[in-house]
Amino acid sequence: MNKSKKQYSHSEKVGLPPGSLLLVGEETTHPTIELYQFSTDAVSYKTHLNIADIEIDAEVVNWIHITGLNSSFVEQIGVKFGLHNLILEDILSTGQRPKVDEFDDYIYFVLRVVNFSGTELISDQVSFILGKNYVLSIAEKKSEIFAPIVDRILNKKGMVRYNKADYLLYTLIDVVVDNFYLCMDKVEMLIEKLQGSIDLPNQDNRFLTLIRNLKKDLLQLRKNIVPTREAVYKLERLETPLIVENTDKYLRDLYDHTKQLEDMTESYNDTINNFREDFMSHLSLKTNKIIQILTIISSIFIPLTFIVGVYGMNFEFMPGLHWKYGFVSSIVLMIFVSIIMVIIYVRNRWI
Amino acid sequence: MNKSKKQYSHSEKVGLPPGSLLLVGEETTHPTIELYQFSTDAVSYKTHLNIADIEIDAEVVNWIHITGLNSSFVEQIGVKFGLHNLILEDILSTGQRPKVDEFDDYIYFVLRVVNFSGTELISDQVSFILGKNYVLSIAEKKSEIFAPIVDRILNKKGMVRYNKADYLLYTLIDVVVDNFYLCMDKVEMLIEKLQGSIDLPNQDNRFLTLIRNLKKDLLQLRKNIVPTREAVYKLERLETPLIVENTDKYLRDLYDHTKQLEDMTESYNDTINNFREDFMSHLSLKTNKIIQILTIISSIFIPLTFIVGVYGMNFEFMPGLHWKYGFVSSIVLMIFVSIIMVIIYVRNRWI
Amino acid sequence: MNKSKKQYSHSEKVGLPPGSLLLVGEETTHPTIELYQFSTDAVSYKTHLNIADIEIDAEVVNWIHITGLNSSFVEQIGVKFGLHNLILEDILSTGQRPKVDEFDDYIYFVLRVVNFSGTELISDQVSFILGKNYVLSIAEKKSEIFAPIVDRILNKKGMVRYNKADYLLYTLIDVVVDNFYLCMDKVEMLIEKLQGSIDLPNQDNRFLTLIRNLKKDLLQLRKNIVPTREAVYKLERLETPLIVENTDKYLRDLYDHTKQLEDMTESYNDTINNFREDFMSHLSLKTNKIIQILTIISSIFIPLTFIVGVYGMNFEFMPGLHWKYGFVSSIVLMIFVSIIMVIIYVRNRWI
Amino acid sequence: MNKSKKQYSHSEKVGLPPGSLLLVGEETTHPTIELYQFSTDAVSYKTHLNIADIEIDAEVVNWIHITGLNSSFVEQIGVKFGLHNLILEDILSTGQRPKVDEFDDYIYFVLRVVNFSGTELISDQVSFILGKNYVLSIAEKKSEIFAPIVDRILNKKGMVRYNKADYLLYTLIDVVVDNFYLCMDKVEMLIEKLQGSIDLPNQDNRFLTLIRNLKKDLLQLRKNIVPTREAVYKLERLETPLIVENTDKYLRDLYDHTKQLEDMTESYNDTINNFREDFMSHLSLKTNKIIQILTIISSIFIPLTFIVGVYGMNFEFMPGLHWKYGFVSSIVLMIFVSIIMVIIYVRNRWI
Amino acid sequence: MNKSKKQYSHSEKVGLPPGSLLLVGEETTHPTIELYQFSTDAVSYKTHLNIADIEIDAEVVNWIHITGLNSSFVEQIGVKFGLHNLILEDILSTGQRPKVDEFDDYIYFVLRVVNFSGTELISDQVSFILGKNYVLSIAEKKSEIFAPIVDRILNKKGMVRYNKADYLLYTLIDVVVDNFYLCMDKVEMLIEKLQGSIDLPNQDNRFLTLIRNLKKDLLQLRKNIVPTREAVYKLERLETPLIVENTDKYLRDLYDHTKQLEDMTESYNDTINNFREDFMSHLSLKTNKIIQILTIISSIFIPLTFIVGVYGMNFEFMPGLHWKYGFVSSIVLMIFVSIIMVIIYVRNRWI
Repeated sequence: MNKSKKQYSHSEKVGLPPGSLLLVGEETTHPTIELYQFSTDAVSYKTHLNIADIEIDAEVVNWIHITGLNSSFVEQIGVKFGLHNLILEDILSTGQRPKVDEFDDYIYFVLRVVNFSGTELISDQVSFILGKNYVLSIAEKKSEIFAPIVDRILNKKGMVRYNKADYLLYTLIDVVVDNFYLCMDKVEMLIEKLQGSIDLPNQDNRFLTLIRNLKKDLLQLRKNIVPTREAVYKLERLETPLIVENTDKYLRDLYDHTKQLEDMTESYNDTINNFREDFMSHLSLKTNKIIQILTIISSIFIPLTFIVGVYGMNFEFMPGLHWKYGFVSSIVLMIFVSIIMVIIYVRNRWI
Repeated sequence: MNKSKKQYSHSEKVGLPPGSLLLVGEETTHPTIELYQFSTDAVSYKTHLNIADIEIDAEVVNWIHITGLNSSFVEQIGVKFGLHNLILEDILSTGQRPKVDEFDDYIYFVLRVVNFSGTELISDQVSFILGKNYVLSIAEKKSEIFAPIVDRILNKKGMVRYNKADYLLYTLIDVVVDNFYLCMDKVEMLIEKLQGSIDLPNQDNRFLTLIRNLKKDLLQLRKNIVPTREAVYKLERLETPLIVENTDKYLRDLYDHTKQLEDMTESYNDTINNFREDFMSHLSLKTNKIIQILTIISSIFIPLTFIVGVYGMNFEFMPGLHWKYGFVSSIVLMIFVSIIMVIIYVRNRWI
Repeated sequence: MNKSKKQYSHSEKVGLPPGSLLLVGEETTHPTIELYQFSTDAVSYKTHLNIADIEIDAEVVNWIHITGLNSSFVEQIGVKFGLHNLILEDILSTGQRPKVDEFDDYIYFVLRVVNFSGTELISDQVSFILGKNYVLSIAEKKSEIFAPIVDRILNKKGMVRYNKADYLLYTLIDVVVDNFYLCMDKVEMLIEKLQGSIDLPNQDNRFLTLIRNLKKDLLQLRKNIVPTREAVYKLERLETPLIVENTDKYLRDLYDHTKQLEDMTESYNDTINNFREDFMSHLSLKTNKIIQILTIISSIFIPLTFIVGVYGMNFEFMPGLHWKYGFVSSIVLMIFVSIIMVIIYVRNRWI
Repeated sequence: MNKSKKQYSHSEKVGLPPGSLLLVGEETTHPTIELYQFSTDAVSYKTHLNIADIEIDAEVVNWIHITGLNSSFVEQIGVKFGLHNLILEDILSTGQRPKVDEFDDYIYFVLRVVNFSGTELISDQVSFILGKNYVLSIAEKKSEIFAPIVDRILNKKGMVRYNKADYLLYTLIDVVVDNFYLCMDKVEMLIEKLQGSIDLPNQDNRFLTLIRNLKKDLLQLRKNIVPTREAVYKLERLETPLIVENTDKYLRDLYDHTKQLEDMTESYNDTINNFREDFMSHLSLKTNKIIQILTIISSIFIPLTFIVGVYGMNFEFMPGLHWKYGFVSSIVLMIFVSIIMVIIYVRNRWI
Repeated sequence: MNKSKKQYSHSEKVGLPPGSLLLVGEETTHPTIELYQFSTDAVSYKTHLNIADIEIDAEVVNWIHITGLNSSFVEQIGVKFGLHNLILEDILSTGQRPKVDEFDDYIYFVLRVVNFSGTELISDQVSFILGKNYVLSIAEKKSEIFAPIVDRILNKKGMVRYNKADYLLYTLIDVVVDNFYLCMDKVEMLIEKLQGSIDLPNQDNRFLTLIRNLKKDLLQLRKNIVPTREAVYKLERLETPLIVENTDKYLRDLYDHTKQLEDMTESYNDTINNFREDFMSHLSLKTNKIIQILTIISSIFIPLTFIVGVYGMNFEFMPGLHWKYGFVSSIVLMIFVSIIMVIIYVRNRWI
């Protein structure tokens, strides 16, 4: 399970000095480096660079996108971009809570790309460094979610070529946040499937297992969405020259999206809780009905069985045994008794 | 289901640049444009205008009301009124969380008109732009709720003709908020119907289904009312020359209404939760009573049936078989045993 | 039901312009006007005045107390005292959430007088206007709760004659808040009655109905008390020349009372929730005990009945049928079997 | 019940003017007055004083400790110390919510001494007035909890003789807060007793009653501790010359204690709620097991009893009746049937 | 139980003057004192010092680490370092809520080292004093968790030798916080074990006991983590010359860790609550299934047993007794009846 891997991880670092560069998660021997340099007028693109070959051009926007992590690699990146050791540690500890950190020359933003793999959620960490003229993005694993942005840059779609590095950062965070909507769709689909089957009789353990898994997924989503919202809020409030006023509007819009996502998780959570209660209510109703049948059958036939038993006794002297209408009378008696009992039960609304 | 349509929608836009103008929801080929221009003294009214024909008269209040959406149309409106791309995107994404956004020259306010269609809630988005001298309102679908305001403008009822565009905006939001009260009435009616039937015996699945649907409706209402309240609150606090001081009082009053609506949803929600608990308690009581009957019948007749069984055995040598009072004695014995058992049960309050 | 009348009411006004003077609730054709004018030294009292006869004497404190509402009457009052249309609308909409509103020349305070009528809560609205030198109080219905204040004014009891209009307002709000304590007493009494009967066996539907009604009452009280506390808090914070510093201490004390009332509703609510859970626990215990009895009786006698059945079969060749001690042996066997079973059950603590 | 006495009390005062001096609670005809006057160097102690004999010595710290209340007595105290009528009213209304009130010349602090009397909590009100050079403490009933402070003053233990009146006030509040720890011990003891018995079989109503009483006690404690914490917090924040900076550290420490007490009530409350849920879970498990036994016994023997019944019928022509191995075959058949059924049940994990 | 020892403890101090030095917990006769003095260039290490031998060297960072407590020892430490009596009292009361306190010359920080001893959590108190040039750490019991820091100091690993006393304090708090992650691992392991067994049939009391213990552990962890987070937050905000700006970044990072720990406790708590509900749901399902079997068996065979009983009666005149096909017909009748009943049940989905 991906989730537990993350959380076991921090404990491996207990006792190490703060800022120790130990990778938590899977190691990539050769991380790939891609460099995009663009202005409104021009764009260039290099891939499979070495760290030494990265050159920041102060005239254009530089986007350095790294895929894969290993500790010595991240240390060299830290030296190259002058990053604080704590940031490097955070980049390597791939179980971070989404957050934003402001330093003198750059802003660090970390969040998680969440995807369904079958019915299970997996999440990978993506770190962003926004410096003057550049954005450095470091993804734990290869992911397709940034492909549309590459397309926009290379083909001059959208506003990204007309703006600075801060807008690029916004765009990158935006696609990660948008990605949550895809997870929400899947959750909604699963909820509707449950909804359709809740009134069917003979639901069993599998229904409960579905509910439990769905709750686990939502808990996981919530754990990622809420701190992302907090981080975006903090990012919007930062007073920093790295973010120009124009980008504020976009960040506010991004915040609205994270807020809506949070609303959705809560409303889905309420819905699922109602499912469980509904399931229990239906089960109780069903148990009640079954016991009712048992009681009706039992309380009619058990007394009758007693009566026939009485006339099954082998006493020599029993009234009516040799009477011609004895049998018929006993049958009549029994019919009478059962009618009386049914009347009593119906009157008292017991049954 | 309307609700799911909305929420699936955002995911269609994943990967598109921010500000992309893609309609989420149903497309209207020819949206209608109505233009009302009024001052205290005069009023004029035009309909089925083209965008090019809209002329803002700075001397009067201009209300441009648009019904229906398509993306190229909204783009032209954006050019005409100088609106930010993010706003146009929000207008087209008809699953917005109610909110207010302030720009330099105008204020954007979006909320939802909620109505019961049968027992299901449907909600349509309405966007408002308040600029200098004008209000632009864009409704996703044709709706009758603005008819009273048209009437007030044309026939000089109420205060709307005596005030500026900000008061018109307030009036428009006010009718949308007032509309929630109608939904609340319907909810209240459904609650009272449930209340009347909760003590009836033999409630079944249908009762649970009613409760579930009612909860879903309330969740839906709450999801619209809470952010509306937040948006009205923010609108009241905005320091903008577009809203004159006199209108503040009305916005405060509007805020009180949204607050009261929120109170109502919470109090209804509590009531419904109590219904479900009541239902379960009644069911448990009923099950208890049925089992009690089963136990009384069983524990009296099962031992008796055993006794008669004993004398039904075919042993040759059994005491009393040939005794003249054997049968009568056995009956007396059985009556005695059952009386003893009833006494024991009653004493221990078991039954 | 009074409550639903109030809430249905607002929807009648949907579509009317803000500030429309439409009475929600019962109309009184001739509201009564009482005028009390007093200073430390003198007091005068007039009743059944017409609106035209009301004269505010700037040298003394003027208390105009109006009982009953109709819309044209309130409109005239509005003209007389120069009140904003929104205030007049609030006075007429007798389902207001308690609140305070500050205007340039006066303060509007609205809250509700809550009383038990039998076991049901009814609430009437009272509005207060505090202006310079005067308090205008408008009660929806005739109520005795202001009688003690009249007594204090006429007979110079307490501090009311020694203070200004702001203190009079405080005194009026104070008696309304004090009135909640009477409701709390009734709730407490009902709770103690429930408490006394919760351990009694054979509780039934009526117990659940009592709990449900009590919860409804508490919900109702809470809905009135919480906004009252908020309004008193806001009143205390208002920076207005209409309230002198000396009165602040009294308002703080009033706030403490509303806070205590809120504490009480929450603690009562917790208690009632515990009652319901207790009821369910007791019911489960009882069901468990009944099933236990059923199981003991059944699992002892059903196997025995089988054994006697075996010897009731009519096979010609059955061992022991003609043996002299056959019957006795079978009885011994059965006693032995039942003892074994009882031992097994007791050992396993099943029974 | 002490608690209800308090709460009924306030309603007796409904309609009286604010500041009315009416004692709520038990009246003491002759309250005792003790006067302690001390400085670092000297100490004097007088008891059974009259009000007229109290003399505040501005050179030393004066502690006037009063035990018992009656309304005329409190009125005289009010005159003597120049106290506001609202304070006198609060002193006499012995059901106050703990709070602090600041006046020009003095600070009023009221809280409650809570003690277990058997398994029930009783609480008495203690009011403190901190003035320049003096502390006036007024206890509703005689209590031993201030004895250690008297000891410290007379025998110069601790820091109390080295400090001013504000430190004395802190010391007095401190012993009242410390007293809550004793209640917590008792609660903890009761919880551990419950914990020890929760896994025992055959728990019954008494267990539920213990839980209910414990919850009631905790609710009561919480109702006293939370406002005490708020009041201490407010006291620490007061900017008043009556409290010197040095005492702030002690008040902060006191606040930490009240915070810890609040944590304890919440953690105990969680624990008790878990108890109830555990109880219900155990009960359900037990019911399940009992029904399982019933089902096993019934579903094995009921079909067998039917089979023997078949051969108990008195038809003349039944196959095998006169066969030599008829009886043995039927027994074999029955054993076979029961083995089949057991296999079916075990396979399906039904039993 | 360690926990109860702590909490009983405070009540032993009731009535003692504030600042009384009474040890709560186990006494160590001879606490050990270790002194580490280091700068970037040099390091020295002394152990088993006497208090008199401690010399603070203003040129380097001094770390005095004390293990074990007794009251006279702590008093001497207080004199040596000029600590406030309240601090000494807190050091000795080993049941403190984690907190930070600022004094003029030093900062006091207290928190708890939590460890699993088997399945039970034990926690020991550690106090830190940060003064100019020195950190004084006082551990209640010997613990290995500071060993890595000693290693870093002596062997110049990490940043600790390059920084001042404030960084040392951060490092010490950091290892204590890191230690919580180890507890979380254990909790996670226990949760996964539970998860693996929840769907197994025949869960019993032991499952409930595991859940109860796990909840108790989480409650305990939460009680330590939440105030630790608050204290770290407060420490970061302190405006004090004792903490240099550079250390702020580390404290912010530490805060993120405590926040993540808090998130983890809440998410684990949710998971465990879901376990309990799942357990109850499964149990209800199982009970339902068992009752269903009982009902099917009973309602088929009880009527049949009645029918055979009828023909077991000893009446002389019964139709069909002497008919050749009487027996066969009765069997056919019974098969017919049971088929009818099964059809009825299946149709109604009762079974």
